[in-house]
Amino acid sequence: MTLSASILVIGNEILSGRTKDQNIAYIAQKLLLKGIKLEEVRIVPDEEHRIIEALNALKTRYRYVFTTGGIGATHDDITAASIAKAFNQPYALNRKAALLLKDYYKERLNPIRMRMAYMPQSAQLIMNPVSCAPGFYIENVYCMAGMPKIMQAMFDYVFSILETDLPISSKIVSCDLLEGDIANALEEIQLNYKDIAIGSYPFFESPTNVGVSFVIQGQNTDAIDKAYADVMAMIERFHGNLKFL
Amino acid sequence: MTLSASILVIGNEILSGRTKDQNIAYIAQKLLLKGIKLEEVRIVPDEEHRIIEALNALKTRYRYVFTTGGIGATHDDITAASIAKAFNQPYALNRKAALLLKDYYKERLNPIRMRMAYMPQSAQLIMNPVSCAPGFYIENVYCMAGMPKIMQAMFDYVFSILETDLPISSKIVSCDLLEGDIANALEEIQLNYKDIAIGSYPFFESPTNVGVSFVIQGQNTDAIDKAYADVMAMIERFHGNLKFL
Repeated sequence: MTLSASILVIGNEILSGRTKDQNIAYIAQKLLLKGIKLEEVRIVPDEEHRIIEALNALKTRYRYVFTTGGIGATHDDITAASIAKAFNQPYALNRKAALLLKDYYKERLNPIRMRMAYMPQSAQLIMNPVSCAPGFYIENVYCMAGMPKIMQAMFDYVFSILETDLPISSKIVSCDLLEGDIANALEEIQLNYKDIAIGSYPFFESPTNVGVSFVIQGQNTDAIDKAYADVMAMIERFHGNLKFL
Repeated sequence: MTLSASILVIGNEILSGRTKDQNIAYIAQKLLLKGIKLEEVRIVPDEEHRIIEALNALKTRYRYVFTTGGIGATHDDITAASIAKAFNQPYALNRKAALLLKDYYKERLNPIRMRMAYMPQSAQLIMNPVSCAPGFYIENVYCMAGMPKIMQAMFDYVFSILETDLPISSKIVSCDLLEGDIANALEEIQLNYKDIAIGSYPFFESPTNVGVSFVIQGQNTDAIDKAYADVMAMIERFHGNLKFL
């Protein structure tokens, strides 16, 4: 049974299209190395009931939930309080986080900044080497900042404490064939390999540069190698030319 | 009552991190022009029960659901069949779509390509000027391709048939102040404007280039202008310098 994960992106700025999310792909790729499969993502606004509802759905279903966004110091940063509610825990000052903030901000520490040390009572810290204010985790839920630079630094820490399974690896090959010609042959290959997934992604760079990329992914590297050989043989059988995108 | 919308992204390639979604921000920004608020996004794998489950949750809750991905010709393209099931409708050949494909592919039309003319029985077509195979809509669910170029062309068509409310507009200002200094003053401004949202987004370009962007968004342009003036006055009061990112 594969380790499963989900991401909950909390942020009006993503839903308004003002900011393009950069965290999903980053987390997803890293999880593959740990053999953890990202199975769902939800993006919700900065609203308490929406955060709680999504969190409850995801935390019971997946081994891991990673949240991004909403852990700063302003009125729209309600992730920590919402997650405390979802876990029926007091939203309380974390002494270790308070000490970190004191040490970092010194005389600039004020009650506003100290808000960033409040979190669900039993939460443990996720270190933030970029801007100090830590993320936190509680049970299977890991809460990180939304700013990519900080999120990535926090995720490096999280990465080191996640369970590990066989890495999920993939082989990719692109060619100038068209899905509409090879779909049946490709499906036959997929049917021979139950534990790996063969994805087919057409590209359309220009009217004269079209084709398809095949992505063969899974934890069984032998099966990936064999399926890859089958796909290569199929491309040859259909007189396709390889493409290097 | 604002018109609400959600997006359902269907695609293993997004969940594996291989492909970065480009459609969410595109759709989100266009919806603002129509006064439609994107309130939730879900990303699910190419699995029938996951598509159906997410679709059922979203289509009852939001005025519009936009799906992207999974409407090609290969075995992993199961969006149309899954949506037919979600609506308890036969997955049937759409004659108009079949004629479009015949006209476009001519002698290259084969049973594989003809699959792209199958959809829920009562679906209506979404035209695709890029690569012919149409998307479709049924009730409040609009199904489009995942490839950005095609999705955008399809969405242009969809855009013309959506309901329209007052546009959602925004004003943005960035400065070199820090959230930890102005959060209380900012919250006071927010409390004066119930029908607009004031978002606060710190940036951290380098240790010497840090600050915060304020995004004031809503349908009431008078309130936006007033809140913007209040934010500008706050920046001055705190001796902040404007930044042009």
